[in-house]
Amino acid sequence: MNAQFDSKGGLRHLLTLEGISRDILLRLLDRAGQIRDAAVGRVGRRNALAGVAVCTLFFEPSTRTRSSFQLAAQRLGADVLNFDASTSSTRKGETARDTLKNLEAMGVRGFVVRHPDDGMVEMLAESAGEGTALVNAGDGRNAHPTQGLLDMMTLRQAKGADFSRLKVLIVGDVKHSRVARSDLHALRALGAGEIGICGPANLLPDDDTLKGCTVGSDFDAMLAGVDALMMLRLQRERMEEGMVRSLADYHRDYGLNAERLRRAATNAAVLHPGPINRGVEITDEVADGPQSWVLRQVANGVAVRMAVLESLLG
Amino acid sequence: MNAQFDSKGGLRHLLTLEGISRDILLRLLDRAGQIRDAAVGRVGRRNALAGVAVCTLFFEPSTRTRSSFQLAAQRLGADVLNFDASTSSTRKGETARDTLKNLEAMGVRGFVVRHPDDGMVEMLAESAGEGTALVNAGDGRNAHPTQGLLDMMTLRQAKGADFSRLKVLIVGDVKHSRVARSDLHALRALGAGEIGICGPANLLPDDDTLKGCTVGSDFDAMLAGVDALMMLRLQRERMEEGMVRSLADYHRDYGLNAERLRRAATNAAVLHPGPINRGVEITDEVADGPQSWVLRQVANGVAVRMAVLESLLG
Amino acid sequence: MNAQFDSKGGLRHLLTLEGISRDILLRLLDRAGQIRDAAVGRVGRRNALAGVAVCTLFFEPSTRTRSSFQLAAQRLGADVLNFDASTSSTRKGETARDTLKNLEAMGVRGFVVRHPDDGMVEMLAESAGEGTALVNAGDGRNAHPTQGLLDMMTLRQAKGADFSRLKVLIVGDVKHSRVARSDLHALRALGAGEIGICGPANLLPDDDTLKGCTVGSDFDAMLAGVDALMMLRLQRERMEEGMVRSLADYHRDYGLNAERLRRAATNAAVLHPGPINRGVEITDEVADGPQSWVLRQVANGVAVRMAVLESLLG
Repeated sequence: MNAQFDSKGGLRHLLTLEGISRDILLRLLDRAGQIRDAAVGRVGRRNALAGVAVCTLFFEPSTRTRSSFQLAAQRLGADVLNFDASTSSTRKGETARDTLKNLEAMGVRGFVVRHPDDGMVEMLAESAGEGTALVNAGDGRNAHPTQGLLDMMTLRQAKGADFSRLKVLIVGDVKHSRVARSDLHALRALGAGEIGICGPANLLPDDDTLKGCTVGSDFDAMLAGVDALMMLRLQRERMEEGMVRSLADYHRDYGLNAERLRRAATNAAVLHPGPINRGVEITDEVADGPQSWVLRQVANGVAVRMAVLESLLG
Repeated sequence: MNAQFDSKGGLRHLLTLEGISRDILLRLLDRAGQIRDAAVGRVGRRNALAGVAVCTLFFEPSTRTRSSFQLAAQRLGADVLNFDASTSSTRKGETARDTLKNLEAMGVRGFVVRHPDDGMVEMLAESAGEGTALVNAGDGRNAHPTQGLLDMMTLRQAKGADFSRLKVLIVGDVKHSRVARSDLHALRALGAGEIGICGPANLLPDDDTLKGCTVGSDFDAMLAGVDALMMLRLQRERMEEGMVRSLADYHRDYGLNAERLRRAATNAAVLHPGPINRGVEITDEVADGPQSWVLRQVANGVAVRMAVLESLLG
Repeated sequence: MNAQFDSKGGLRHLLTLEGISRDILLRLLDRAGQIRDAAVGRVGRRNALAGVAVCTLFFEPSTRTRSSFQLAAQRLGADVLNFDASTSSTRKGETARDTLKNLEAMGVRGFVVRHPDDGMVEMLAESAGEGTALVNAGDGRNAHPTQGLLDMMTLRQAKGADFSRLKVLIVGDVKHSRVARSDLHALRALGAGEIGICGPANLLPDDDTLKGCTVGSDFDAMLAGVDALMMLRLQRERMEEGMVRSLADYHRDYGLNAERLRRAATNAAVLHPGPINRGVEITDEVADGPQSWVLRQVANGVAVRMAVLESLLG
C-alpha cells in the first residue's frame, strides 16, 4: 500500500489508513479542526483550490458521501464534476482506467473514487499521472479512509485528544466493513487503549484484521466500561445471503437501545457511519439522544474532506 | 400550516400559499419584479447568497422545476447541490428526515424539496434546525407555492396589479392539482374579482377547496368574458386510472383552441404550468400564439425563486 | 445547413462542419491552440463567460463528451446546467423543442445538444431565439463538429499545419459515424492531400459522403505511407444487427496492432475518438504506445470546446 506516498514519505493520494503515520494522521485531524467552521459555514476557503477541477468518480452509487465531498470541494473553490460510472460496463479494470486517464487529460486534478471491488482505487492510483491525486471514497470491504478520519475527529471532540486510555467497541458486521478496517488502522495509529470487536461470529473476519483486539459476540458483556461505541451499518444483503436470520434477531443481539447503553461508561459516545437502519443497529431513542454523535460525524466529514483535498491538491 | 412563519410572523420556510398574507405575497412579487432582468440576464446577484449551500432535494423527479431553482440559486451566488432521492426507499418519512438532517449537518442552509406525498415537505420543515429554510417545490396534490407566485407575477404583467375586477378561469384536473390549490390561495389573497373552476365532474375536488368559486363543467359557457385562463396539465395516469376516457375526448371538452379562445375577453391571457401536452390541454396555435404567456411564466419562475431564496436565506 | 450562419456569414451556432469555410475553421483552431494551457490548467478564462448559463442538453447519454463540455464551460466562468433528457418521451420533436424553449426562457444562452436522430440539433437551432447559441455534440450519424475540430487540432500538432501533403486513412464503420463525416468535411476544408477510407463494404456509405476519397477494404494494403490513422469506434450494436460477424473477425481485418502500424509512414499518428474497445479497433500496445494521440485528442477537446463556446457566446 505504498502508492499513496511520494518519495519523501508525503501523502500523494489517500487510499487507506493502513500504514499511515501518527504524524500525518494528526496533521490532517488538526487541520480539519481548524477549518471546521469554514467547512459548514458560509465562508469556506474559496481560494485554496480555485480553478482546480475535482471529479467524483463513483463506480458504485452513494449520494451522501458524494455530496459531502462535493460540498468540501466547492468550499475550497474547486470546480466539481460528478461522473457517474456505476453501470457495469464501466466498472471493469481497463475501462475504469481509461475513464480516469481521459478525465485526467481533460485537466481534472483530483479524483474522489468509490468502487465496489477491493483494491481498485489503488490500481487506478497507480496509473495516475504526476500532479493527479486520488482519494478513496470506499472500495469494496477494503478501506474508507476519510470515514476513518472523521470518526477519529469525532472521538477527539467527544473524549479528548489522548486516546491511550480510551476503550472503544466496534459492533456489527466487521467482516464486510471498510469503515471498520479504516477505523482500526486509525485507532491503532493513535494508540487507542483498548479496542473491542463485537458481532455475530460469522460476520467477524478470520484473518489478522482483528489482531490485538478483544473479540466476542456477547454485546451486553462487552459494553461494560466502554467510552465509545462505533456501530456499523447492517447491509440488507446479509439477510439475502443468509448471514443474518432477521432484522429482529440482529437487533435483539446487537442493537443498541437506551437500556443497553447504560451498561457503557457514563456519557459514552455513540457513532454510526450512516445511513442508520433505525430500530436495527440503533433505536430512535439512542440515535436522536444526547449521547449520539452521528450528525457531528457528518459535519466533521466535510471538514476532514476539505483538509484532505487541500493537503493533496493545494 | 404555521411551520412556515417565525415568531414575528415572518416567512421562515415557503411551504404553502395557504394562510399567507397579502403583504408577504406582494413583497415577494415586487422583489421578483425588481430582479427580473438579473434573473434571466448575465448579471445576476452573485453576492446575495455567495457561499450559501442550497440543495435541491427531489423525492420525485422533475428536471424542469429543478433547473429553474438551480439557475435561481446560481444567479444568487449559492453553491448548488442536486440530491436525487427519488428511489422508493429514501422517500419514507424517517429516511427522508435523516437525509435532510444529514445534509443540514454538512452545512446546507436552503432546501428545495419536492415529494410525491401531501404534507411531507411540511413534516420535513418541522425537523429543520434554526437557520435552515425549506422551499416546497411541490408535494403531492397539496401545494406548489412558487408556481402560484409565478402565476400571479404573470397575471400582474398581463392584466395589471389590480386583481379586483379580474375574471380568472382554472380549467382541468383541479382535484389532483397542487398548482390549482396554490393559485387559488394566491388569487384569494390578492382579491381576484371572480374565480371560475371548470373541469370534468370527477376531476373536481368535493371538499372546501373551491369555496367561493363558480364551478362548472361547460367550458364554452364558462369562457365568456374571462380575462385569464389557467389551463392545468392532464397527467397521463388519469387515463390509466379510468378517470378520463381518452385524450381526444378530453380535448374536445376541455381543450383550448383558437376558436374557443375567442369566447374569452379580448386579449385574454393563457397560462399553463408546463409541460404542455400539445393538442390535449392547448392546441399549438394557442400555445405559440400571441395570447400565450407560457414562456413568460417560465422566465418569471426564475425571478420568483430568486426572490424567495433571497428572502429566506439572505 | 445554413442555420448556423448569421446574415454576415459569421458563426451563430455550430451544427456541422459541412460548408464551413477554411477561415472560420482556422480561426477556431488557432484560438483553441492559444488557450490550450488555460484549458487544462488551473487558470482558465473565468471572465469570458462569467454569469452566462450554458446547458448540456443530452437526449442520448454520454458522460465523457458532457464532461468535456462542462469543464470547458466552467473554465470560461459559465454557470453549467446538466439537463438529462434521454428518456424516450422527451426526445420527440415538439417535446424537445419545448424543453429548449423553456430553458431559453429561464435565461440559458448556450446549449450543448446531443440527439440520437440526424438533423434534430439543426431543427432545434431553427427554433432558438436571438442571442441563443447551440453546439451540436453529436446527432445520429450526421455530425459531431467539435470532434472534427479536435481531430484537426491534433493532426496539426502531430503533423504540422500544412495538410496539403498529408495522407490520412479513416478506418472502420464510416457508414454510421458522425465523427467520420465531420472529419471528412474538415479535412477537405483544410485541403488534406489524400484521404483514404477503409472498412468492411457493408459499413461504408454508398452516397456521396466519400466523394474524392480512395475507398477500399484491404487494410494492410491501404496502410502504406499513411501519415495519420483515424480509427473509428465499433458500436456493439453492429453485431446485434448482424453487420459484423464477431469482434475477433473485425479485429483480424481492421484492428490496428503494432505490426500493422509499421506499414504506415514513420511516426504515423494514431487517433481514436474514444472510448476505445481495446483489442478490437486498437491493441493495448498501440493505444498506449508512442504513436497514440488519443489522450492528446481528449485534452484538445476541452480547448476546442472553450474556443467554440467563447466564439459563439463571448
